[in-house]
Amino acid sequence: MQSAPATFTADELARRFSLELRGDGAARVEGVGTLAGARPGQLAFLANPRYRGQLASTGATVVVMRGDDADGHDGTALVAPDPYVAFAKISALFEPVPVRAPGIHASADIDPSASVDPAAHVGAFCSIGARSRVEAGAVVGPGCVIGDDCVVGAGSELIARVTLVTRVRLGQRVRIHPGAVLGADGFGLAMEAGRWIKVPQLGGVVIGDDCEIGANTCIDRGAIDDTVLEEDVRLDNQIQIGHNVRIGAHTAMAGCAAVAGSAKIGRYCLIGGAAGVLGHLEICDRVVITAMSLVSSSIRQPGEYSSGTGLMDNRSWRRNAARFKQLDSLVRQWRGRDD
Amino acid sequence: MQSAPATFTADELARRFSLELRGDGAARVEGVGTLAGARPGQLAFLANPRYRGQLASTGATVVVMRGDDADGHDGTALVAPDPYVAFAKISALFEPVPVRAPGIHASADIDPSASVDPAAHVGAFCSIGARSRVEAGAVVGPGCVIGDDCVVGAGSELIARVTLVTRVRLGQRVRIHPGAVLGADGFGLAMEAGRWIKVPQLGGVVIGDDCEIGANTCIDRGAIDDTVLEEDVRLDNQIQIGHNVRIGAHTAMAGCAAVAGSAKIGRYCLIGGAAGVLGHLEICDRVVITAMSLVSSSIRQPGEYSSGTGLMDNRSWRRNAARFKQLDSLVRQWRGRDD
Amino acid sequence: MQSAPATFTADELARRFSLELRGDGAARVEGVGTLAGARPGQLAFLANPRYRGQLASTGATVVVMRGDDADGHDGTALVAPDPYVAFAKISALFEPVPVRAPGIHASADIDPSASVDPAAHVGAFCSIGARSRVEAGAVVGPGCVIGDDCVVGAGSELIARVTLVTRVRLGQRVRIHPGAVLGADGFGLAMEAGRWIKVPQLGGVVIGDDCEIGANTCIDRGAIDDTVLEEDVRLDNQIQIGHNVRIGAHTAMAGCAAVAGSAKIGRYCLIGGAAGVLGHLEICDRVVITAMSLVSSSIRQPGEYSSGTGLMDNRSWRRNAARFKQLDSLVRQWRGRDD
Repeated sequence: MQSAPATFTADELARRFSLELRGDGAARVEGVGTLAGARPGQLAFLANPRYRGQLASTGATVVVMRGDDADGHDGTALVAPDPYVAFAKISALFEPVPVRAPGIHASADIDPSASVDPAAHVGAFCSIGARSRVEAGAVVGPGCVIGDDCVVGAGSELIARVTLVTRVRLGQRVRIHPGAVLGADGFGLAMEAGRWIKVPQLGGVVIGDDCEIGANTCIDRGAIDDTVLEEDVRLDNQIQIGHNVRIGAHTAMAGCAAVAGSAKIGRYCLIGGAAGVLGHLEICDRVVITAMSLVSSSIRQPGEYSSGTGLMDNRSWRRNAARFKQLDSLVRQWRGRDD
Repeated sequence: MQSAPATFTADELARRFSLELRGDGAARVEGVGTLAGARPGQLAFLANPRYRGQLASTGATVVVMRGDDADGHDGTALVAPDPYVAFAKISALFEPVPVRAPGIHASADIDPSASVDPAAHVGAFCSIGARSRVEAGAVVGPGCVIGDDCVVGAGSELIARVTLVTRVRLGQRVRIHPGAVLGADGFGLAMEAGRWIKVPQLGGVVIGDDCEIGANTCIDRGAIDDTVLEEDVRLDNQIQIGHNVRIGAHTAMAGCAAVAGSAKIGRYCLIGGAAGVLGHLEICDRVVITAMSLVSSSIRQPGEYSSGTGLMDNRSWRRNAARFKQLDSLVRQWRGRDD
Repeated sequence: MQSAPATFTADELARRFSLELRGDGAARVEGVGTLAGARPGQLAFLANPRYRGQLASTGATVVVMRGDDADGHDGTALVAPDPYVAFAKISALFEPVPVRAPGIHASADIDPSASVDPAAHVGAFCSIGARSRVEAGAVVGPGCVIGDDCVVGAGSELIARVTLVTRVRLGQRVRIHPGAVLGADGFGLAMEAGRWIKVPQLGGVVIGDDCEIGANTCIDRGAIDDTVLEEDVRLDNQIQIGHNVRIGAHTAMAGCAAVAGSAKIGRYCLIGGAAGVLGHLEICDRVVITAMSLVSSSIRQPGEYSSGTGLMDNRSWRRNAARFKQLDSLVRQWRGRDD
């Protein structure tokens, strides 16, 4: 079962999302497309000026755009100060959302001490451990494992095959994609007499309201205190968050980023793909880290930061990389001759 | 159940794979080994000239090699223009392949609107969603979750615990390893009034014939259009493919590589381990990216590309990395003095 | 069910772990905390001199520390040569460990030719394949898939949703976290007439006693011989280990590290987060690789090694990275003028 296919007039969309309509209010929209690829009956958007040239030839029946772009446009437009935001809201009308009826699948294995709200959905082949709680409106998709002492807050959704290992508390409207593992042991080791000793990980994981956690992302539980994501943190896929990390509200991290234990990241930060943050350091609010950069010391000023080198053909790169290995001695030679 | 242990004579192998036999055609082979480690009764191969010295002392009963290597060899040889290719084909004879009988395991949870071909196998604890289709000869191993509107093409195999989230269409003979997640939401966000808004991901994922997807690899579904892998693309483990990426036929990517949204990669490319490709750029056909390099702009010429620096002892590296931070100002100083 | 909450006197702890007691032996401890955050009734530790200033104001009832730190301390102390090791052992007393009673969950799907020791636990929704064996005291948590010809050694634990694909032999007391995939096909490909041919992966994976494997980590099985982890190897989350890799005893690797096929890593190595090791090379014992470094050739001397550049503000970085691309030609110019 899923929601019925929707169709809206440009006028209905304008009123629903408080947008300015220009053109034919009766134009019917039954789906979305890209500006370049849209067919009649579809709505597209123009946000990036780079694509302005596609506007004249678009097949879209309605286009969401800024006022100045709409000025010279013949077709039907919905004018928005931020067309991408308006498009995000409109396109949600056309998203086929599987209906997850309240109730517990007959196959689910639920500890007697766990509680599942009657208005929650628990899918096939789910395990729920001791003292855990699934709140109203929450969806636990097929194949999820929820260990002991966890909370899935109201309206949160575990799409499928998510693991909450132990002591993981999710706020409301948290969304977690398949394969994610929250609350596994932090990587705590001590060496004694030439062998590793495991340091017990007694803390948990606390995820704030409206966070999103990508597929196959891992968030370890804390050693003593908790690992914490504040509200509205957005993590892409394959991200690794070590124990006792704290991530500030509204921060977003792209795929394959990694944060080592006890690092503290501020609010409204943007961490690029495959970037790394070493342990026990702090990044202040509103810091941007570009892709594949390594943060090796604390950052106290907002701004954009990078490391690494640019891409080159391999032959040139080899020559330059060889020089990098001589860099300090070359500078010393140069200084010695000149100074 | 699995296939019975096989044994072949050198002569049988020569005829079966159209190889030239030199030596004893009656020599029996019952398994494979490395050139250095093979025991009597095993077949080994010599492809890399670096290992030619191991040929004299190998315990292998039969060795696959090039004609010029065979010229001075006393033992039984199968001569092939590409010994590695010939070895790959021969060793497949000795691979124990678990038999997956057609049929649906009693525990599987299948939506009434889904269809499973009678000649397909669906294992224990699988979920299959609305309107999804599993074609003839396909194998869906234990613990897989297939959401709504997916297709598992004829002869494709999901080894175990694979997730196809929604709108994922696999071609024929596609092979997907455990933990892989295809069709999760792309990472689309817009900021409004200081909070993230989720951009619905209405597209799907299309995987061409003969593709292979490694363990714990993620391929997100598209925002509007689909994310596409053309035929015979080979992805190793832990790879991240963002929404609306397109990867050309016969391209191979090593473990932990990551491709950001809307990037287009050509045909016959080789992307090294943990390499990154930024979003919205294009890489032409026959490009090689070395391990851990970052592709930060489009590549229009075939060839090999790299970024980063070489490995050094940490003390030297610190000195050179400190100079890198001064590089532009050092060059300006030098130019200022000399020019 | 879980173990009852524990409480101990300082004197009991001193005797149990052979530590020197200073202060009030009757002081009661019922949990652990950080030095800065502990409440009365909790035990904390001081290992890093950087936190010595927190000692005077700690709320902890008992603190584990070195003798010289204890000399000036008023409260109750447990003196240990390595306070972190002592703390690790003490805190294990307070870890709530879910009890996994021996027996096989009714839902588990076990091949008739597999064997499960009566003193092992197999959880809900597990699959166990042909000829596999689960030994005494082992725990196979919910949602695990164990393929054919695998061994889960005595006292080993697969927390949940772990996959052992085929021919994976775990030693004793091995601990594997959710989402890990051991024994998937190595990434072996040969090109013939413009198409990839899959090279069969006939080897297995051998994991030594006391190893730990993090969440979503992948260890591929060997092509001909096995992939091997010697005893007491500790792998964090999201690590990728290619086929035929060998990792020496007591080596630890941080999250997101990747090792390409056939690399050999020595004993007592420390591989930093997201570091990469290329294939077919060797790293000797007692080598430290810093985070995000790439090992591109063999290392024959113990010590610490690094690659990459330091983090800078993006504007400065752009200037320096541009100079890196000119480095060889700049040095040639300089030499040409001076020499």
